[in-house]
Amino acid sequence: MNNTAFIPADSALAQALLAPRSVALYGASDDAAKTAGRPLKFLRAAGFQGKIYPINPNRPTVQGEAAYASLAALPEVPEHVFILTPTHTVLDAVSECARIGAKVVTILASGFSETGPEGAAREEALRELGRSTGLRILGPSSLGVINPNAGLVLTANAAFAEPELPRGKVFVASHSGSMIGALVSRGKSRGVGFAGLVSVGSEADLCVGEICAATLDDPGIEGYLLFLESLRHGDRLRAFAVEAMRRGKPVIAYKLGRSAAAEMAATHTGALAGEDDIADAFLKDLGIARVGILEALLEAFPLARRIPLATDGTSPRRVGVVTTTGGGAAMVVDQLGIRDVVVEPPSEATLARLEAAGIAVSPGRVLDLTLAGTNYNVMKGALDIMFEAPEFDVVLAVVGSSARFQPHLAVKPIIDSAASRKPLAAMLVPDAPEALRSLTEAGVPCFRSPEACADAIASVLARRAPGIQPAAVAEPGASAKPLSEAQAYAILDEIGVPHAPALTMPLAGPPPQLPFGFPVVAKVCSAQIPHKTEVGGVVLGIADHRELEAALGTLRNNLRERAPDKHCDEVLVQPMTRGLTEVLVGYRVDPEAGPIIMLAAGGIWAEVARDRSIRLAPVTVQVAHDMIAEVKALKTVSGLRGRQRGDLEALARAVSALSQLAVKPALRIAEAEVNPLMVLAEGEGVLAVDALVLRS
Amino acid sequence: MNNTAFIPADSALAQALLAPRSVALYGASDDAAKTAGRPLKFLRAAGFQGKIYPINPNRPTVQGEAAYASLAALPEVPEHVFILTPTHTVLDAVSECARIGAKVVTILASGFSETGPEGAAREEALRELGRSTGLRILGPSSLGVINPNAGLVLTANAAFAEPELPRGKVFVASHSGSMIGALVSRGKSRGVGFAGLVSVGSEADLCVGEICAATLDDPGIEGYLLFLESLRHGDRLRAFAVEAMRRGKPVIAYKLGRSAAAEMAATHTGALAGEDDIADAFLKDLGIARVGILEALLEAFPLARRIPLATDGTSPRRVGVVTTTGGGAAMVVDQLGIRDVVVEPPSEATLARLEAAGIAVSPGRVLDLTLAGTNYNVMKGALDIMFEAPEFDVVLAVVGSSARFQPHLAVKPIIDSAASRKPLAAMLVPDAPEALRSLTEAGVPCFRSPEACADAIASVLARRAPGIQPAAVAEPGASAKPLSEAQAYAILDEIGVPHAPALTMPLAGPPPQLPFGFPVVAKVCSAQIPHKTEVGGVVLGIADHRELEAALGTLRNNLRERAPDKHCDEVLVQPMTRGLTEVLVGYRVDPEAGPIIMLAAGGIWAEVARDRSIRLAPVTVQVAHDMIAEVKALKTVSGLRGRQRGDLEALARAVSALSQLAVKPALRIAEAEVNPLMVLAEGEGVLAVDALVLRS
Repeated sequence: MNNTAFIPADSALAQALLAPRSVALYGASDDAAKTAGRPLKFLRAAGFQGKIYPINPNRPTVQGEAAYASLAALPEVPEHVFILTPTHTVLDAVSECARIGAKVVTILASGFSETGPEGAAREEALRELGRSTGLRILGPSSLGVINPNAGLVLTANAAFAEPELPRGKVFVASHSGSMIGALVSRGKSRGVGFAGLVSVGSEADLCVGEICAATLDDPGIEGYLLFLESLRHGDRLRAFAVEAMRRGKPVIAYKLGRSAAAEMAATHTGALAGEDDIADAFLKDLGIARVGILEALLEAFPLARRIPLATDGTSPRRVGVVTTTGGGAAMVVDQLGIRDVVVEPPSEATLARLEAAGIAVSPGRVLDLTLAGTNYNVMKGALDIMFEAPEFDVVLAVVGSSARFQPHLAVKPIIDSAASRKPLAAMLVPDAPEALRSLTEAGVPCFRSPEACADAIASVLARRAPGIQPAAVAEPGASAKPLSEAQAYAILDEIGVPHAPALTMPLAGPPPQLPFGFPVVAKVCSAQIPHKTEVGGVVLGIADHRELEAALGTLRNNLRERAPDKHCDEVLVQPMTRGLTEVLVGYRVDPEAGPIIMLAAGGIWAEVARDRSIRLAPVTVQVAHDMIAEVKALKTVSGLRGRQRGDLEALARAVSALSQLAVKPALRIAEAEVNPLMVLAEGEGVLAVDALVLRS
Repeated sequence: MNNTAFIPADSALAQALLAPRSVALYGASDDAAKTAGRPLKFLRAAGFQGKIYPINPNRPTVQGEAAYASLAALPEVPEHVFILTPTHTVLDAVSECARIGAKVVTILASGFSETGPEGAAREEALRELGRSTGLRILGPSSLGVINPNAGLVLTANAAFAEPELPRGKVFVASHSGSMIGALVSRGKSRGVGFAGLVSVGSEADLCVGEICAATLDDPGIEGYLLFLESLRHGDRLRAFAVEAMRRGKPVIAYKLGRSAAAEMAATHTGALAGEDDIADAFLKDLGIARVGILEALLEAFPLARRIPLATDGTSPRRVGVVTTTGGGAAMVVDQLGIRDVVVEPPSEATLARLEAAGIAVSPGRVLDLTLAGTNYNVMKGALDIMFEAPEFDVVLAVVGSSARFQPHLAVKPIIDSAASRKPLAAMLVPDAPEALRSLTEAGVPCFRSPEACADAIASVLARRAPGIQPAAVAEPGASAKPLSEAQAYAILDEIGVPHAPALTMPLAGPPPQLPFGFPVVAKVCSAQIPHKTEVGGVVLGIADHRELEAALGTLRNNLRERAPDKHCDEVLVQPMTRGLTEVLVGYRVDPEAGPIIMLAAGGIWAEVARDRSIRLAPVTVQVAHDMIAEVKALKTVSGLRGRQRGDLEALARAVSALSQLAVKPALRIAEAEVNPLMVLAEGEGVLAVDALVLRS
């Protein structure tokens, strides 16, 4: 993981990648129907204004245009070369690009790291070529780059045979090359256009984050849609997301891997997906709206633009719903409820204002205007009152059949409210393409299914403003070495995570007098034995001094028999501690997400249910409280039904404290897992009773 | 809950409701734009061939047609009367209908039980009118009835102003009147037509189940779509679903209430929704496919028709996926995975057959043909091999951009496989309306979003064939009376649910010698004290005879102080029992779902997570095992990671045994909750250590 310092928009890269003045098509085919023939055909059809140089050593012409035998034979250095030749020729072709001084090369062929050791070596050679020459590489396995505003349809994706590319304000970066075609056709039917699309392929060099970051200065790009198969190059994605947020350009992402099965399906890139809930926390913590429904990827942008991401933790979350159709609205409310979005009922004051305005509503969670809501003044009046009502952060209008039969009447009050001071969105219950078009053109966030509507709202509201940037952190991976438990406690002391009293003593015995009472536990204490129970290195429930002496003997015997090759001089003794419940708190530097902090249910429940909350580290005490609220098992110590409340304040402080390892690079901690952390009764704190810390 | 005996299709009712020879429009307005004016206009526009009688005492003509002053003034008795007048006039109008001998009356007005006691009284009077005269009532709050094949557009729903109603083979019954309009417009855009639509309103008399059942003999109706706000009139729905399954007519349902919030949103019907997971079990156990995504309601029928519901428990569940686009297929696989649908990888044998046929596939969970799959022979060859492969029950083809650009080529191999011996479905990754139309016309189940595709497949595969019909069961409700714990154990003995040894003795003491060892627990035993701990009626951990004697004294004191008005003579003594874990097993007669059996996590976890499995009772031991697999907490005793395995065989037998109360009407048990049931180690059984049984 590199340092995630500010990356300025790389306009030169963006220009060569997305608006090159000249393009070479390396291996262009004379047959326009063939994959290697498509880019020339598409570029010409789109009226690309730059120079196009087909390279084909075997023919004087390609599709009726003069072909060149090699890159060296060109009259100028092309800015961007698209290599269309087979895998085994790619390295030589890229070398040639570097030699002549091209800026960007895009590689169509697959057959690199996803295919095994030989392919991986090829990919590493490619990467090295880029590093040593400064040539930037898109791919391998890239279907290319499209920039509708520049007529650049530099792709082998058959989907771009279509003449009219929908133009718009959002930029797409996709791990899947075929999805850029699907997004274009789906966008077209939904009235959504694009300012550019890039198939990033396997990201040997240029990755999603860097490509998007390069375009941040483009005034024609107002937001980003990402189609991600897995979390890769997290540092670049983080840098981009932080900067996009600073500029008010929303980022929406659809990421595969919600179920474990998807990882196995996405074989064609060879990427191994990480744990999805880590990626989910990563995206949310960087202010990226992660949608779960494909159509929401296309629909969420106008909403994300209307809802600013608060940096003070006061994010909007209460949705007010107004409707002409109770049944239709109930669908959306149900879908919002599944996603934990609060649908706020109108307050007494709001109901009074509605009544004073002569607007009748049925009682309930939504403002149901019934058929009367098809009257312009009734709907407009209700909306205006909702915009003033302090209980709503976002207003959603659910429009019934009038959206289809009187599109201009039914959606006019909504369009006339497009500039309202509160975010407004619309969901249409019938199939109502005309109303949808009017709303889309007016810039009103609008949805044609209750699921995409709820998904978009939920994902936009779930974004969190990026917190403190971690410092240069420890490298994850094999180089990290475990500390002994005693050394681990020293780290906990330093960062302020409370632990049970612990006394180390020589394994050889005899034991000294203890500064705390019996019963106690005795554990072997050695950096070489991180998993103590596996070698019989723990004796529980020691009742008195005599038993302690015997326990040391047992530990010596067990070590001799089960870990003869491990060095261990010391034993760590602690009082037996019981809490109301126990949790696991873990800090680690994830290879992609960077430093993360996790709070999980402890004990047996952790094994059967993934009951845990994850954030990018570090977190404040306030955020730690949000995490506590997300762990279901902790409801048992939240004062529910008269049960004793645990010291959740102390727990939040401990979680926050452990997470601060992310900003203490001098400690070089790659991983620190406190398991279990005992949660005592309210006012009595929390106590770590075991800890495993890895230092890099 | 009535007996759910077989209900034959009521063709006479279906005819009067859906194909009446004459219709009276009671209160028809001269203004066709008004709600009360629409039905006349719509009927004429649709070319309804029966007689239409507008009733309006204030005008000689209505919309240019002769109007009648009253029902009595008509030249014949209309079969079906649509009452369009305000709430306060409805009762008189319905009386008049009954008097002249009309068969069916539909009531548009709202303002009945959903508005409070006065409205409820009005509704009860309405129901009584129906009961006493035989007049069948649709509504109140019904937007009417549509039968495209009879030109019957008897509705006030403005959505039916549209000229062309899409005709088809499915019949819609909806709690929401506005949704019938939305389904028509959405169906139209999706190529789905209807054989009829009914807005059932608040079901004072005719309900979803009875209406659908009445149409079962109609050869023009091949399946049913239900839009349900809550589970109501479960007995009728059950009878209909069982009979629909017998006739091979699939039922698909969209039911609100997955989140608690939706119940509060659906205020306009006044129905209070039950617990959604009970309704969910009810629908699945009756073989109804419950979809979660609106579009799947329209799309699931062809798939449900292709996948027969096995009655022997061997339901198909393994889906094989073939694709031309790995990224697109991964979306569907991800969505299927979220819904616990097994995407089966091809076997070695299947891969060998593919290779022998010259069909190259990337390794992985899906058969990725890549671009080669756009060749007819490659896709057709792969499909044919999949139809023969024993590892797949259902085959899903995910088609990429070729579906849009070469619709006839890309989907032709799929259409040519429409009659394959295995169910085949298709999902189109791009927006590809033409391909979608071809597939739909060919009757191939097809989907335009990965979410609706996965939802439809999952909901169709989740259907379970209805089991044994319960006998006439105990009535739920206030009339049921608790038994004492000793009496409850007698019931458990009778049905074969093991419990801990229990000895009753006089509360007055002295205690006799026990037939089992100490420690024991002593509990007050009285039918008047179902909740013993609330009155201090339990003493735990009694170590010897002397302590038992003291415990009786404690119990006497506690009863004197905290339950002086309760009669209690006896104490029940049991050995203290510990299991590996504890569960709650509950049987009850739900007001809508009928007899149900529930298995839930016990102890504290039950309070914080709804970790439970529900089925309609009775269940076999085999089904009880399925329930055990659904309770997450029970994974802790399933032998996971070397942990001790609980006696899950004995647990399954106990669950099945308790559920048999549904077929033992003579016992008159309305509710029986064993909590906790201790699960002992494998081979050692299970033991109830408390039970609460209510007899009606």
